This record gives sequence, structure tokens and C-alpha cells, in this order.
Amino acid sequence: MEQMEVRRILEQVQGGTMNLDDAMLRLREAPFTDLGYARIDNHRQLRQGAAEVIYGEGKTKEQVLGIAQSMWDGGVRTILATRLNGEKADYVKAHIQGSAVQYWETARIAVIGSMPEPTGRGTVVVASGGTSDLPVSEEAAITAMALGSKVVRLVDVGVSGLHRLLSHMDEIMNAKVIIAVAGMEGALASVIAGLADCPVIAVPTSVGYGANFGGLSALLSMLNSCASGVSVVNIDNGFGAGYQAAMINRA
Amino acid sequence: MEQMEVRRILEQVQGGTMNLDDAMLRLREAPFTDLGYARIDNHRQLRQGAAEVIYGEGKTKEQVLGIAQSMWDGGVRTILATRLNGEKADYVKAHIQGSAVQYWETARIAVIGSMPEPTGRGTVVVASGGTSDLPVSEEAAITAMALGSKVVRLVDVGVSGLHRLLSHMDEIMNAKVIIAVAGMEGALASVIAGLADCPVIAVPTSVGYGANFGGLSALLSMLNSCASGVSVVNIDNGFGAGYQAAMINRA
Amino acid sequence: MEQMEVRRILEQVQGGTMNLDDAMLRLREAPFTDLGYARIDNHRQLRQGAAEVIYGEGKTKEQVLGIAQSMWDGGVRTILATRLNGEKADYVKAHIQGSAVQYWETARIAVIGSMPEPTGRGTVVVASGGTSDLPVSEEAAITAMALGSKVVRLVDVGVSGLHRLLSHMDEIMNAKVIIAVAGMEGALASVIAGLADCPVIAVPTSVGYGANFGGLSALLSMLNSCASGVSVVNIDNGFGAGYQAAMINRA
Amino acid sequence: MEQMEVRRILEQVQGGTMNLDDAMLRLREAPFTDLGYARIDNHRQLRQGAAEVIYGEGKTKEQVLGIAQSMWDGGVRTILATRLNGEKADYVKAHIQGSAVQYWETARIAVIGSMPEPTGRGTVVVASGGTSDLPVSEEAAITAMALGSKVVRLVDVGVSGLHRLLSHMDEIMNAKVIIAVAGMEGALASVIAGLADCPVIAVPTSVGYGANFGGLSALLSMLNSCASGVSVVNIDNGFGAGYQAAMINRA
Amino acid sequence: MEQMEVRRILEQVQGGTMNLDDAMLRLREAPFTDLGYARIDNHRQLRQGAAEVIYGEGKTKEQVLGIAQSMWDGGVRTILATRLNGEKADYVKAHIQGSAVQYWETARIAVIGSMPEPTGRGTVVVASGGTSDLPVSEEAAITAMALGSKVVRLVDVGVSGLHRLLSHMDEIMNAKVIIAVAGMEGALASVIAGLADCPVIAVPTSVGYGANFGGLSALLSMLNSCASGVSVVNIDNGFGAGYQAAMINRA
Amino acid sequence: MEQMEVRRILEQVQGGTMNLDDAMLRLREAPFTDLGYARIDNHRQLRQGAAEVIYGEGKTKEQVLGIAQSMWDGGVRTILATRLNGEKADYVKAHIQGSAVQYWETARIAVIGSMPEPTGRGTVVVASGGTSDLPVSEEAAITAMALGSKVVRLVDVGVSGLHRLLSHMDEIMNAKVIIAVAGMEGALASVIAGLADCPVIAVPTSVGYGANFGGLSALLSMLNSCASGVSVVNIDNGFGAGYQAAMINRA
Amino acid sequence: MEQMEVRRILEQVQGGTMNLDDAMLRLREAPFTDLGYARIDNHRQLRQGAAEVIYGEGKTKEQVLGIAQSMWDGGVRTILATRLNGEKADYVKAHIQGSAVQYWETARIAVIGSMPEPTGRGTVVVASGGTSDLPVSEEAAITAMALGSKVVRLVDVGVSGLHRLLSHMDEIMNAKVIIAVAGMEGALASVIAGLADCPVIAVPTSVGYGANFGGLSALLSMLNSCASGVSVVNIDNGFGAGYQAAMINRA
Amino acid sequence: MEQMEVRRILEQVQGGTMNLDDAMLRLREAPFTDLGYARIDNHRQLRQGAAEVIYGEGKTKEQVLGIAQSMWDGGVRTILATRLNGEKADYVKAHIQGSAVQYWETARIAVIGSMPEPTGRGTVVVASGGTSDLPVSEEAAITAMALGSKVVRLVDVGVSGLHRLLSHMDEIMNAKVIIAVAGMEGALASVIAGLADCPVIAVPTSVGYGANFGGLSALLSMLNSCASGVSVVNIDNGFGAGYQAAMINRA
Repeated sequence: MEQMEVRRILEQVQGGTMNLDDAMLRLREAPFTDLGYARIDNHRQLRQGAAEVIYGEGKTKEQVLGIAQSMWDGGVRTILATRLNGEKADYVKAHIQGSAVQYWETARIAVIGSMPEPTGRGTVVVASGGTSDLPVSEEAAITAMALGSKVVRLVDVGVSGLHRLLSHMDEIMNAKVIIAVAGMEGALASVIAGLADCPVIAVPTSVGYGANFGGLSALLSMLNSCASGVSVVNIDNGFGAGYQAAMINRA
Repeated sequence: MEQMEVRRILEQVQGGTMNLDDAMLRLREAPFTDLGYARIDNHRQLRQGAAEVIYGEGKTKEQVLGIAQSMWDGGVRTILATRLNGEKADYVKAHIQGSAVQYWETARIAVIGSMPEPTGRGTVVVASGGTSDLPVSEEAAITAMALGSKVVRLVDVGVSGLHRLLSHMDEIMNAKVIIAVAGMEGALASVIAGLADCPVIAVPTSVGYGANFGGLSALLSMLNSCASGVSVVNIDNGFGAGYQAAMINRA
Repeated sequence: MEQMEVRRILEQVQGGTMNLDDAMLRLREAPFTDLGYARIDNHRQLRQGAAEVIYGEGKTKEQVLGIAQSMWDGGVRTILATRLNGEKADYVKAHIQGSAVQYWETARIAVIGSMPEPTGRGTVVVASGGTSDLPVSEEAAITAMALGSKVVRLVDVGVSGLHRLLSHMDEIMNAKVIIAVAGMEGALASVIAGLADCPVIAVPTSVGYGANFGGLSALLSMLNSCASGVSVVNIDNGFGAGYQAAMINRA
Repeated sequence: MEQMEVRRILEQVQGGTMNLDDAMLRLREAPFTDLGYARIDNHRQLRQGAAEVIYGEGKTKEQVLGIAQSMWDGGVRTILATRLNGEKADYVKAHIQGSAVQYWETARIAVIGSMPEPTGRGTVVVASGGTSDLPVSEEAAITAMALGSKVVRLVDVGVSGLHRLLSHMDEIMNAKVIIAVAGMEGALASVIAGLADCPVIAVPTSVGYGANFGGLSALLSMLNSCASGVSVVNIDNGFGAGYQAAMINRA
Repeated sequence: MEQMEVRRILEQVQGGTMNLDDAMLRLREAPFTDLGYARIDNHRQLRQGAAEVIYGEGKTKEQVLGIAQSMWDGGVRTILATRLNGEKADYVKAHIQGSAVQYWETARIAVIGSMPEPTGRGTVVVASGGTSDLPVSEEAAITAMALGSKVVRLVDVGVSGLHRLLSHMDEIMNAKVIIAVAGMEGALASVIAGLADCPVIAVPTSVGYGANFGGLSALLSMLNSCASGVSVVNIDNGFGAGYQAAMINRA
Repeated sequence: MEQMEVRRILEQVQGGTMNLDDAMLRLREAPFTDLGYARIDNHRQLRQGAAEVIYGEGKTKEQVLGIAQSMWDGGVRTILATRLNGEKADYVKAHIQGSAVQYWETARIAVIGSMPEPTGRGTVVVASGGTSDLPVSEEAAITAMALGSKVVRLVDVGVSGLHRLLSHMDEIMNAKVIIAVAGMEGALASVIAGLADCPVIAVPTSVGYGANFGGLSALLSMLNSCASGVSVVNIDNGFGAGYQAAMINRA
Repeated sequence: MEQMEVRRILEQVQGGTMNLDDAMLRLREAPFTDLGYARIDNHRQLRQGAAEVIYGEGKTKEQVLGIAQSMWDGGVRTILATRLNGEKADYVKAHIQGSAVQYWETARIAVIGSMPEPTGRGTVVVASGGTSDLPVSEEAAITAMALGSKVVRLVDVGVSGLHRLLSHMDEIMNAKVIIAVAGMEGALASVIAGLADCPVIAVPTSVGYGANFGGLSALLSMLNSCASGVSVVNIDNGFGAGYQAAMINRA
Repeated sequence: MEQMEVRRILEQVQGGTMNLDDAMLRLREAPFTDLGYARIDNHRQLRQGAAEVIYGEGKTKEQVLGIAQSMWDGGVRTILATRLNGEKADYVKAHIQGSAVQYWETARIAVIGSMPEPTGRGTVVVASGGTSDLPVSEEAAITAMALGSKVVRLVDVGVSGLHRLLSHMDEIMNAKVIIAVAGMEGALASVIAGLADCPVIAVPTSVGYGANFGGLSALLSMLNSCASGVSVVNIDNGFGAGYQAAMINRA
């Protein structure tokens, strides 16, 4: 129920054209669609210039297009479509009206509209352990960028070759948030959190085999980090990490 | 190796009082104790006025006292001792020299020195599902406060009585970070993240029985949150959540 | 052994046309097919007008047809074939004699014969968290309908957007039973049970990835619901939930 | 916000003693405490004469007494306190004012006030596998009784001695709901559901050892029941089963 | 319902002293207590001279005594009470009337009455890996003996010192059944089954620590035995193995 | 080292043509290939007329043929090839020389040579819960037959329709061993063991979905059977159960 | 930063051509690329003549070729490419310039360049339980050989036929390190460690089915070995075992 | 069968005082106690001067004393008693005859006799993450020392403060074997293996809480190490690591 409708009901009560019982009934019918509604409805939307998100997995290419077109037509200027394979991306590219589409194959993300200028307070560092972690770390990076953060990538800085990581101390020390993406033993999150002075969001990946159990080893490792300042998202959930990082980095 | 020592070596080289081989040997001995060292060494310390942390579990009361006294004597003015039972707290209180000690029994935390004035950008909301979750939510709250954050507590706002939570929409909408503490099915994190517009740090607790498996149900629930903006710390890790929340909230 | 046959044996004994030993032998041969048999035999059948069920998974299309034809010829007028792919459904449609066949692709259910008129005491509400949960929620819905219940569907009312659920308070308050279908963190069951005043049957789905572990997260979440009045069926078991809901709703 | 307050605001608007802006502000402040509130607030309460529930675990005896006294003074006439050890029960008995207290030691339940007369549509059968399951089955039985259901107990009817169960076919066939309580392999639920023609709520117990894993074996067994009409609650959750059974049995 | 009663009913029908309806009612009441009943009722009892079993865990000493006395008075001459601590055993010893009581402390088993002479076809070999496995292997041994089997024990023949096992090839080759009891990696079962030419019943024990997970390692090891002829009972279930071994060994 | 070789060494010592040191060296070289060897070597072979076994999974059709041909040429007259798909079976049929081949498609077993006449002491009953369990129960049945046991099959006697099982009380009471094959909740083993008076070998199958976890539910259920006389083999291991059943049934 | 560069900076300081501030800046920039760097950088490289390793899984054939060519051109004369399928191996063979390529199909390993002469102190024995374990045991064997170890293979020495293993006592007693590769129950490691007098590296394989859970049974079995001197690598990680074995065997 | 007995048999054959059949029978009786026996029997004993081991857990103080005294009297001069609490250690100290006893309380190890001089090729480094890991790391250290290795301890070098570890690069680079002991996320093993050039034996500890699951997180982490050269022992198995490290370090 819009503000306007509440006012209209009250005006009618004031003007004597609606009796109390009818007014109470009308108000009662919509306890959750009143003024509070708007806030709730928009809760997922990041303010000013931020992206709307479409989760592409399990949706047909037509559905993705439909939702994207409708958002675009509704005025959203950065639409993030995640977990989108190439075929769906091509389809959206070919049929969307009025908008440009960018597609990152590794990250499986398309951006309909334009990438926003970085508006965050600082830099989001996305560090990943190995090349196999790239689909997840890129999902995190593109997501954070689409939500207005400047992103610096540290690729292939796994802990088995510590100097690779240590040679990036400047980026680590200057980050506002760090996303640590790693599979296998997932030690990267603890090592980075031990070095850094900002929140670390750890993303376990399902990279590995055997007693990796689909990412369980990295997940448990990250949850049990001996370093302070680490929190964890679901296995392979690069989007979730990028989203929260952008939230933290927002001015 | 301090900056000063590096400079001194270089000065001696410059002045001809140290030959190249000796200089190289001296520099080589401390590849990790050079200028980078100080930064690394201090990485766990929050800047200016923040707390140092002592993990009390598995330490004797004498050890806790010793560490705390040494920190206090070294100039730290807010020392956080977590997972500290009453006996250890009493011992520290009785024997610490030069400092006051506050103890929160539910949170099992002592603060040696003084609690800092809130210096964070905004408010950290600590919401918990039931009264059994209080030890964990209080650990989170006191930790965040000791690290300079203003904290608002929402107690007993479990999802089975949604109106209890919804009546706190203002606190939720105005938070800079929210810590959602819940055991059993851990649904609180998703519901809050769906309502809020800031990062949510979820803390699963081991409260429950049977197929709760020591907090596993809440942990998995929170990791699989359908709402964006949620990250998770270890089961019962109120300290970790409070620590990261304060980091995020830092100006 | 039918009641009638027992009576006939007794009549023959009474009439002297069967001696005691033969009677005892006849009765003995069927200790479990006596009067109790009929009750047991029919226990799976809901009374008057209800459906018989064929579990289609792992059966050939010829087998499904054979069983269905035999039931139809035996007088069953609503035959529910679950977990039936399109090919099998087409085959049954093409070859069944004397009956119409309806097929719901999403629910993977065919009804041979006719859907019964709703005879239940009230309404079964089937609420589902997201569009990916539809195959399971539709299986629940069609099953309940085929067993004589009126069904109201609440689609895409996941807890991350609470207002979507809250705008259906009327349906929730008026339900006789609610089936809550959700994957990922499965919080929907607790939230609904906290709002409703009737039994809630929770169906965890395998929708999700990573630490979802094939539906384990939703399953544990639902089993540990902090709300009273929730029971749970197997992961993806829409049929089981629909079946029990119809049982509860029966007059 | 009570109905009365909404009416008062509207009356003031109608009477011209409150302007529209103030009225809107007043209404807005309580989007979730309006008329919807009362319904939500009372959602846990069973209608007319039913019990309120206090979960005793993790509460001090003083807290249990305090809550119970306050409920009693507020007019609730059947208060169910579950998971209550003998000491707490004795304390409540000794100090409660104005009410009688009954305590069932095996079920660890106290009823403050009086047990209601059975008002349910039929009978709730509580069947349990072995004597070790009694604490759980009694919790279920007393709960259902306190919520107005007539209860019939079938004790020690485990599937390893089938005749014990089969000799109770009449109770099974005449039940409105059956609660099947079993540990170890939990087969009781499937066998009963195969015999009965009503909903079966299965309660796995933690009775057993070794590969029982704290009730996991019975839990998985019950979730995978090959019989239709079975749903499951948490391990050892007799209360949950009794509560839902009473809900189903309510007229 | 005894054969005799069925005959009596039939005679009355034949003789005209009972009408058909009454006969059918009488027969109907006992569909599961007919001739099949007696067999079922006695299914747990081993024939002629064998033991009855009382599971002592979770029963009071008075209950154990009561059941044992009643069995003894009913003519059972070998009563096996398992999982019985010393205190309960002492109580039974002191109060049982008319019978002797033997107690094996390690096996936690008492035999009320007398141990039967071995009547089995051959020898049951009980082999155990280490001294910590003795409570379980002794439970198996005493159980098999109480059920009429001759038992040979091979103690401390763990696979880490293969010669200890190999020096008992004669016992292994001459066994009718072998019970292999082992914790930790549980390899004993496979090694023995590879050497022997008779059924091997494997009993995993909870002996071990760490990744033993309460006996899970030995359990999985034994279930995955690469040798033919191995079956497995629950962790620490010496009784179950001894019981089945005696069954197999029965003439 | 063959018996003959040991004798020859001793003869040479006796005859003085070999000195003691050489004899000791010769004997030492073969501590495990002496007379004990033959016994060990043949341990897997069932005596007189029994089958040799080839595990077909992971072997090429050429390998299976090669091994089978070599066994046949070596005089084995019943060769059991398990886990053999149709293609491999056809290949063996087409190319084996001198022998007939029978193939059971459901059981995925081929017998090269002839099935032996039943020589066991009694009957092996193979009972299975549902039609989906047939591949496993048939593997058990054919294996037991190939090893000389008479087999009676009870198909589709799952516990949800108890009368189906109870109508086979005669077969159950007359069995020497029973193999109970069931997926889902695996309750069949407990129910049968409660009815029977002989060893029950339980085979959990991976039939099911969701919280079945690949057969884990049936496995745990069977390991925790409340009935005495049950042992368990690996999930889907029909061969193992048939093999042990034949061992038990051997005269 | 190379030794040479540090020396050059120092020379410039000494010679007065670089001032102190610039020198400190230059040194500071590379705290982790100084002399320590070289050691770290080379840590993965075994000294003199040893192999470099390329993990082939998840890399394209072009990437594998590129890395290998670059290593070869850089002077590495033994390059080990693991987890390489035949197609990638063929591609590298066809396009590598200046080098020979050997490919082991079972082990999925290619060696670019030449296999080194054995330089280790003794022999690495690679023992495997069954033919299905060959891909893993061969990966271990080829890896150890490529790193300079002499390897002896014991194939198909599973514990179910102990004499096969025992006939290789000489190889076992003379080994410097033994790699024990086994799936299913993984008992081989314990049995070998009980016989041998050198370190045993156990490799669980995922060979098996059902309660094998992807190698978990062998993994837990090996971790819980009752024999001293056993350590374990990841499931199917033949490379890791071969690598560590070669390390141990190095002179 | 001792060498001497074999010789005696052969002598008697040679001398004609034993015929061939008797000789073969005598030899046959002991296929596994012949010359091979001695080797097997001594397999657990490290050569010359090394320790014998008594596992103290689950043994009474009298048993430990008895075994130790018997070993001492038998000439063993270093006897290692592990998992020995203070009371048992005191008892052995007070009653052992002829020997000194040293006891390490943290490691729960007693050495009866004298610690051997280091005879290993190099140094065993025992690195541990935190002070709570000390019982395990000390068990490893004392074990390696008692078996003749020189040990260097690196205490409290957890990865959250990397500089602590990096300041010990010399010890790490000079080790012959490194034992990495860590709980929580167990990242220490990967980081050290990335730095070192020798075998790393990783010991996960049960230090931690929540999703640590009794050491599972560190165990999985270590098994999935991305660094080469790591193998793992059971959770908290310091002894096993120390034992294997000493084996590797033996000259």
C-alpha cells in the first residue's frame, strides 16, 4: 500500500466519506504493504548507480532476457547477470533493446548497461590461490566492480610459494577489503588475514580432489582460521564475496 | 631489522667502515625482519586506541595475568581477554597492577584498562535468536565495543516470532554492520540480510540438539543463505564476528 | 482372503460340507490374508474417489502403462503416476485404453483418469522459496490435488524478500496445512510456522551448490526449526508432503 | 499497535483533532505493530483453553517460575514446561502462587494449571520401540494431552517382535494421527505407516550406540521411509511431534 | 490365538453353538495371534537349551533382577545379561533365588543359570587386534559360549605384527566361524578372511582417537573388505557377532 | 616352495649331497612358499565343485575372457564373472573355447561352465524390498546358486506392505540363511530378523534419493538393527552376501 | 631481487652514486625478493638433475606445451607433466622443440627430456593392492623415478591373499621407503608397515563403491594404522607420495 | 622356530636320527616361525640403541611397570612410554628397578633408561602453530629424540603472524625432516612445505572448536596441501610423526 493510498484513506475519513470500520478494514488488509513496504522492497538494491542482479543458473535465456529488458526499461542502468553460460549471454546480447552488453566468460557474468565508475572508499583486493580458482575469483571481482568498487587482482598467490604473495604487500596493506579465494587447503585466507589490516572475506572453492570433498576442506579451513578478521561465504560463491566486499567498501 | 639498522648499515658502507660482503651478509640474515617487519608485526593491532586481544582458553590465570600486565606496562590501554572464566577474571582483577578490570560473565570477556569511546562510522547491531545464544552474542557485542564500535543489541528476535524482529526495522535499517547470532536452523541471518542494506556477519551457535550436530545445521544454513550480503564465521565465534564488524565500521 | 471367503469356509463348516482339518488348513494358509488383509491391502488407498499411486522412476514405460491399465480396468478412477518423464507420459497417453491422461511437465506427474473434486476440510497451501524449487513444489501441489485437496500456491516467497511472503498472510492464516518447499538455507519453514496456526510440512530441496551438500543444509535447517508445528520429509520429496497434507486435510 | 489505538487515531482524524501528517507518522511508526500484530503475536498460542509452552532447558529455575507465574497471572490455565529437570520442577511447585503443578519425571514435563479435557477429533497414538525411548515418547504424549488430544500409548512395540505391534492393529487403524518413536534403525515408522491410514509423525531418538551416531541412523531411516504418509521431526524432539499431532487432531 | 482355539471356534460353528458372525468376529480380532503367532513369539529364542538375553544397559538393577527371576522361574536355564556393570551384577547375584550367577567383568556379561555344553558343529574363533578390544571380543566370546558354541580366543593378533596372527593358522583353518574384532584401521577382518575358509563376522570397535571418529574408520574398513566372506555388525557390538556366530555354528 | 622341493632338499641333506648351510639358505628363501603356501593359495577357493570368481568391473572384455579361459583350461568347471555388462558377456560367450556361458542381465553375472547342483544344507532365502533392488538381490541369488546353494527369492516384500512379507512365513522359517536386500530405510533386515530363526545377512542398496546419501540410510539402519542375528555387507554388495550365505549353508 | 642487484645498490652507495634514501627505498621495495628469494623461489626444485613439475589437469594442451617449452628452453632437462590425458600428451610430443617426450598412459604422466639416472640412497618400493589401483601406483612410481629414485613395483599384493605380499619380503626389507597404494579397506599400509623397517607412505585410492565414499574408507583406515611409521597423502595422490618418497630417498 | 631349531632338525636328518616325514612335519608346523620370524618379530625395533615403545593409554600403572621392567631386564636401554599420565609415571619411577626414569609432563611421555645420543643424519624440526598444540608437538619431539634424532623446536609459529615463522628460515632450510603441528585451519603444513626442501610430516591437532569437528578441519587441510612433499598422520598423533621423522633421519 503506497503512502498515497494511506493518505487517501485518511482524507476520506477526515472528509467523512469513509467510516471508521471501513478505514480500519482497508488498513488491516495491507499490514505489510504500507510505508514500510517500499523500504523492504528496495532492500536488495544498492543505492545510487548500483547494479540489479539476475541469477542466471536454472533460468532459460528467454527468462534472463525478459527480466533484463524489464529492468532496463524500468531505468536500471547496471544489470548484473551471474552464472550465465555463453549461449545465454549471446542470446541476451543479440536481443536486448536499447542497451550494451559485456560478457566475461571466465566469470560467467554479463553486465547489461554500463559498468559504474568506482565510488567505493578504497580498493577491493581479490587474491586467488591458483589458476583453477579463476572462475570464482573473477566472479567476485566483476561483481564488486559492477557494484562500484575499484578492484585489484592478485592471481596465483597460493601459499606454497609464499614470495609470490609477499611481493604484493603494498596492495594487501592498502586494501579496504580483501577477498581471498582458494581451494584445496584454503590456507590463503589465514595467511592474508595475518598480513592485512582490513576485513578478509574468504571464498573456498571446489578445486581439488579426493579428501577435498567438493570444497569442504577449504571451507572448514577458512572457518577455523587462526587469524582475526576473516569471514566466509559458501563454496564457489564469488558473487557473495564480491557483493559483501562492495557493501563494506561503500562510502 | 629496524629501518634504523638498515640505514646504519648503509651509512657504514657509505662511510667505508663496512665492506660489501659484510653488508650483504647483514642484510641477508634478516630478509623478513626489515622494514616490512614492523608492518607485519603490528598487523593484528588496530590503530590508535584500539584493543589488544588475549585468548583466555587453555591459558592459566597466571599466564593471562602475565600477558596482560606486560601489555599494560607496554602502554596498551584496552586489553581484551576472551574465553575467560570467572576464576581467571577474579585472579587478574586481584593482581593486575595499575589498571582497572571489567568482567562480563555472560560474554566471558574481561577488559583490562578502559573501554574506548565509540569511534566507528556507525552502529553495529548484534541480533540474536534466543536467550541461549546470549554468551555468543555478548562476546560479539563486547568485542566490537572494545574495538571502538557503538553497539545496539536486539535480543530474542528469532524468526519464529517475526514481529519481534520487524519491530526493530529502524535499528536494522540504520546499522553499518549487523551481526546475526543464531543456533538451531540459523534462519535469522537470511531474514535480516533480506531486510537490511549493510553487511551481515552471521554467527552460527551450537545451541540445539539432535540433528543440530553441534551447530552444523545453523552453519550450513547461514553459508547457504539465499540473501546477498551475508558472510559467516565459525560456530560460537562471537569474537570473530565482533572483530570483523569493528573493522568494517572503522572510519 | 476376503471376508466373504472366510464366511464361506465357516458356512461350509456349519453346513457340514467341510471338515475341521480342511477348514483349519484353509484358514492357516492365509494368516495374513484374512480379514486383516483387506484393511492392510487398502491401507495405501485413500477412501472413496482417491488416487492410486505409481512411482514412475526406474519403471519402463511399458510397465507404467501396464500397471495403470490394470488399475483403470480394476475401477480406480484417479491414478497418480509420479517421477514420470515426458516420454513415458506420452507413451501412456497414446496407449491407455478407456481413460484420459493429464500430464504436468514441471511436476513430472501424470494423472490417468480424472482429478477428483476437492473434498478436504480446507486448503493446502504450497509455498516455495524460489523458481528452482518448482518441480518439487508442483509435485506436492498436484499430489495433494489428486488426493482431493484444494491447493493454493505461493510461489517465490523466499525469506530474503520477506514482504513477498507477508503479503500472503491471509492464505497462510486460513490454511489447514502448509507445505513449505525450500532449498539453500531452508529458512522458509521456520518463518511460515512462526506465522501460521496449522501444521507445516517442510520439504527441503536439493537446490543450491557448495555447502548445500545436495540438500543437507535445508534438511538440517528444517529439522532444527525453532518454530513449533514443523515436520519434515526427505529432500525433494514433494510427493510425500502432498500425500501427508492431503491425509491431514481429509474430512 | 492495538486495534484500539488505530481506531483512536482514525477518530481523531475524523474529529479533526489530528491532522493527516501526524496520523500518517503515527501509523508509519508501527508498520508491524498494527492489526496484523495481534494475529502474529498470538500465532504460537493454540486457541481457547490450550497450553502455553516454556522450554526449560537453559533457563534457571527462577526464570521458569517467573515466566510461569506471569502466564498464570495473565490468565493462561494450562502452562507446559518442557525439558525440566526434577529440581526445577520442585522449585516451581514450591513457589508458584495460585496454581497446581503436575510433573512427569520420565517426560521431564511439568504442567502448571490443569490438563485440558480432550477436545481433539480423535485419538493420537504414541508408539515407541523400546523402553529406552520412553523419555521421548512420554514427552510427545504429555505434550499432545496438554494441547487437548486424547492419547493412546503403545509401548515397546519395536519391529524385532512384530506380533507385539500387530496385536495393536485396532488402535493403529482407529488413530487420527500416529507418533512413531524409535531409536537404533528407526524402522517402526515405516512399518506403522504401512499399516495405518492416517498421518504418521516419526521421532528418531538418540537411543543406540556406535554407528547410530547420536540418532542419525534412525533419522535417515525415517526420512527415507518407503511408506507414504510419514514426516519426521528432530532427533529426540518428542515435544515437536506431540505439538504437531495435536494441531492435526484439532477439530 | 492357538491352533486349539481356532479348532474350538470351528467346532462350535460346526456344532451350531456359535453363529457365523460371532465366529468371524472372534477370528478377526486375532489376525496376528493365530497359528503364526507362536512361531513369531518364540523367534528370538534359540531352540532347546539355549539362552534368553537381557540387555542390561538402561535398565535398573531391580529391573534386571525381576526379568531374570521371572525367566528362571519360567524354566529358562541359561539367561544372558549383557552390558551389565559390576554393581548390577552384584545385586542380581545377591538376590536371585534358586540359581547360580557367573559374571565376566571385562565382557560385562552375567550368566544366570549354567553355561550350556558346547553343542555347535565346530569352533567359533574370536580374534582381536589389541588388548583395548578385549571388552568387545569377550562380549562376543561369552555370548557365543552361552549360546552353545565352543570358542577359541586369539588375543592381540593385530596386523601390525603379522607373525602373531600367522602362528595361529591352525585355529583359523579349523574354525566354523571367525569373529574378527578390531579398532583403529580394522584391517584384521580382511587379513583373516583372506586366510580362512569360513564366514568371518567383523566387529569394528571404537578403540582409537582422532580420525577414528568413534569407530567409523574400522567400520568403513570392514565394510569395504577386499576379501570375500566378510560381514559386519555395529561398532562395539560383540553380542551381535557372538549371537550370529552361534547361529551359524548351530548343528 | 612345493612339498616336493622341501622333501628333495631334505633328501639331499640326508644323502649328504647338500650341506647344512646351503639347506638352511634354501629353506630360508621361501618362508612363505612352503607347505603353508598351498593352503593359503587356495583359501579363496571353495572346496569340491565350487566356483572361481572374476570381478568384471574395471577389466576389459579381453582380460575377462583370458582369465576365464585360463581357469577353464585349468579345470575349473564353474566360473563366476560378476559386475559384467552385456557387451563383455557377449564377447566371452562368442570366444570362450570348450565351455558354455550363461548370462543374467539384471544380476550382471555370467557363469562360464555349468551351475552346480545345490549341495548346501538348506535354503538361502533372498528377500528384497522393491523392484529397484533387483540388480543387487539377483547378484546375491546367482552368486549363492553358483556356489552350490538352493535359493528361494522373495521379491518386492518391502515393509510398507507387511502382508506381502508375512505371507511368506514358511520360506522365512525354513531358511538356513536369509539375505535381506533393501534400499531407502532398509527396515526389511530388522523385520525379517525379528521373524526368522537363522542368520540374516543384510545388503543395503543405493536405491533412493535425497537423504539416502547413496545408500547410507539403509546401511546405518541395518547396522543398528534392534533384532539379533543380523550382519551387514557393503552397499550394493550382493555378491558378498551371496558368497557368505553359501559359506554358511555349506554342509 | 638478485644478489647481484643488492650488491650493485651497495656499490653505488659505497661509490657515492646513490644516496641513502634512494638505497633504502630500493631495498624496501623488495623485502621478499632479496637473497631469501632465490632460496624460496627454488624450493620446489629438487637439486641437480631433478625434475620440474607441471600439473596438467585444468590446463589446455597449449598451456602445457608453453610451460614445458619454456622450462626446456630455460635448461630444465627433466620435466614431469602429471594428470595429462593422451590428447595433451600427443600434442606436446608433436610440438615440443628440441626435446624427447615419453608418455605413460596408465600413470597419465609425460616426461619431457630424459629420465634421470637413479641417484637416491636406496630403493623406493611401490606396492599396490589391486589392478584398479594401477593409475595411482604408477603415478607414484614414475614420479619417484623422474626425481631420481630407483623403483621396485609390487603389483596386486592386496591383503586378501597374504602370500602374494609375503613372497616379496626381500624387497620389503630392503626398501628405503615404501609407498603403499590401496583402495577399499586400505589395509595394505598397516600390514606392510608391520613387516617393514622403513617409512611407509600410504596412498588411499578411490577404488571401491558404496560405503567406500570416494576413498574415505581407505583414507581413514590408513590414518588410523596400528603400525608405526605410516603417513598418508590425499586420496589418489600418487604424485604426492612419489615426490615425498624421492625426497626421503635422496642422498 | 629359531634358526637353531631348523639347524637341529637338519642335523638330525643328516645324521639319520630323524626320518624325512618327521622332518617335513616339524618344518610344516611352523611355516611362519622359521628364519623369517626373527626379522618379522623385530620389525618394530629400531636397530642398535633405539627405543622400544609402550603405549600407556588403557594400560594400568602396574602393566606399564611390568612391561617396562621386563624390557629393561631384557637389555633394552631406552624405553619410551607414551600417553602416560603423571600418576602412572610416578608409579613407574618409584618401582622400576635398575633404571632411571625421565618424565615430560606436557608430552605425557616417560623414558625409562637413557635418551640416546643423536645419531641421525640431520635435524628434525618440530614446528607448532600455537601453545595449545604443545602436548602434540612435544610428543613428536620427545619421540624423535628418544629414537636418536636431534630436534629443533619452533614454537608458536602459526601462519597468522607469518614473520614469526619466516624468522626461522635457517632452521627450516637446514632440516632433514620437518614435523608441522597445527590445529584449527592447519595451514602451517602448506606454508612450511612451500618454504622447505625436505619431507614435511603434518600433524593435525584437535585444537579448536565449532566447525573444527575434533581436528577434521586441520586434517582435511593438510591432506589437501597445495605444496609438494607433505604427508599426514592421524589427528593428535605426535608419536607417529616423531617415529617416522626419526626413521627418515636415520643414517
